[in-house]
Amino acid sequence: MNEAEFIAALRNLPLHPGAHDLSDDCAELEIGGETLVLTHDSMSEGTHFRLDADMSDVAWKLVASNLSDLAAKGAEPVGVLLSHSLGSNDKTFLSGLKSALEKFEISLFGGDTFAAEGAKTFGMTAVGRATHQPTPKRSNAEAGEAIYVTGSLGRAMLGYEGHQEHLEAFNRPRPLLAEGIALAPHVGAMMDISDGLLLDCWRMATASKDVSFELRRELIPVVDPARFDDCIRWGEDYQLLFTADPKAELPVEATRIGTVTSSGFSVLRLDNEILTPESGIGYQHG
Amino acid sequence: MNEAEFIAALRNLPLHPGAHDLSDDCAELEIGGETLVLTHDSMSEGTHFRLDADMSDVAWKLVASNLSDLAAKGAEPVGVLLSHSLGSNDKTFLSGLKSALEKFEISLFGGDTFAAEGAKTFGMTAVGRATHQPTPKRSNAEAGEAIYVTGSLGRAMLGYEGHQEHLEAFNRPRPLLAEGIALAPHVGAMMDISDGLLLDCWRMATASKDVSFELRRELIPVVDPARFDDCIRWGEDYQLLFTADPKAELPVEATRIGTVTSSGFSVLRLDNEILTPESGIGYQHG
Repeated sequence: MNEAEFIAALRNLPLHPGAHDLSDDCAELEIGGETLVLTHDSMSEGTHFRLDADMSDVAWKLVASNLSDLAAKGAEPVGVLLSHSLGSNDKTFLSGLKSALEKFEISLFGGDTFAAEGAKTFGMTAVGRATHQPTPKRSNAEAGEAIYVTGSLGRAMLGYEGHQEHLEAFNRPRPLLAEGIALAPHVGAMMDISDGLLLDCWRMATASKDVSFELRRELIPVVDPARFDDCIRWGEDYQLLFTADPKAELPVEATRIGTVTSSGFSVLRLDNEILTPESGIGYQHG
Repeated sequence: MNEAEFIAALRNLPLHPGAHDLSDDCAELEIGGETLVLTHDSMSEGTHFRLDADMSDVAWKLVASNLSDLAAKGAEPVGVLLSHSLGSNDKTFLSGLKSALEKFEISLFGGDTFAAEGAKTFGMTAVGRATHQPTPKRSNAEAGEAIYVTGSLGRAMLGYEGHQEHLEAFNRPRPLLAEGIALAPHVGAMMDISDGLLLDCWRMATASKDVSFELRRELIPVVDPARFDDCIRWGEDYQLLFTADPKAELPVEATRIGTVTSSGFSVLRLDNEILTPESGIGYQHG
């Protein structure tokens, strides 16, 4: 089974109503008049980081990737649980974890620590509190809305490749928590870009009902125009992708990159080109 | 670093007040007049299960071990998040996961699915709702209380060794959810026995202030008296260990195995023998 097949099979299990049919990065739990937002992201050696990676950066990214999912729901972080397999670099891991928790002003609930064989896997569950209800879903895009992205794409890619001025974007990404909270009341659909702009656009369009995403190449902000096609396929930028009324005044700087239309023959178009996951639009596991 | 050293180092990080200084299996989050109980347990190939294990049993135990932590808090389960590294036995894993979720009437919130190299690690975060406040802590044992255990110890050990009538105790353990909820208003300290009676008694005594646990050998219920010493050191029985007023009428069948006394020269005694983790009292990671 690959990732998509496994998730499809999970839909045959008893799902919580707040799981939203597993169509989102986060689940929701309504309790005592509040809405909690729950997410879990793992990082595995060989898949998400290299054996020679600085483990303090790995710990930071574990926190950042989870908080980025909360950011896309307009949720403020409450705390995290850590799943940690012991290794030789635990002190370094802890220093990065401490830096990230302090930087993002979030605290540790607890978790699980264990000895494991072979490649290391680290997991984190983040708990947030929704600041706006309903929380933005990736499935809420509607025809007529404009498609926006924050920031400029490709920085994590250039950082991964060793470009000094972009190292931090790859090693120490910032979840856009304040931006997500500010945007939540203004957006239709919202998600963070973790697996590349095109793939995440395709996912948002597919999760939404009867819509097509029409992107315009010349509008998409990338760090290196000479490598435009790479910049819009590479993940880990953790920018926010969202839809909104084209006339809405947005509280956060963002670039309009296209328009949501009624579903036609395609889910995703870049200018006149129809794009599908099979045509290589981003990173997929499994 | 071993597990204890790592957890000690985690205490230098920003901790949530509901983490109770990481002295418990669960954290608590008070929200909207309710108390949520949060826990995370992982299972790793080679450490927690064998390569040739039936993956449906592994999935079941992943659910059961997490729910057992909720049981010890008197919490009713709300939902779980799964961290799953893809492998060749995913269909079998899913069938066990489904059986457990249905059996314990709990639903899936979501989680994370990824491809990973080498040995597999599965993680689960369980969210429960406290039915009694304050929730029982492992640190609440007080001198003068009696020490109790539910059930009979050693069944998981005998199941692991292949004894037919105990296979289910090892492969498909039952978290004592109803028992935990019934006991919560009556207990001082409570925890589930995941790493062996003696080690978990030692942990409860250490977490509590200025107390000593005095156990009496002839009172401790074991499945195989000829292997008494193994039965009280082997883990995964998921029975409940708790302290209570010796005169309390308990709503659940349990056996009194000793008494909490004021701290003397020892943390844990079995009849006249002083026991310490260094003397081999149970399973510890790392």
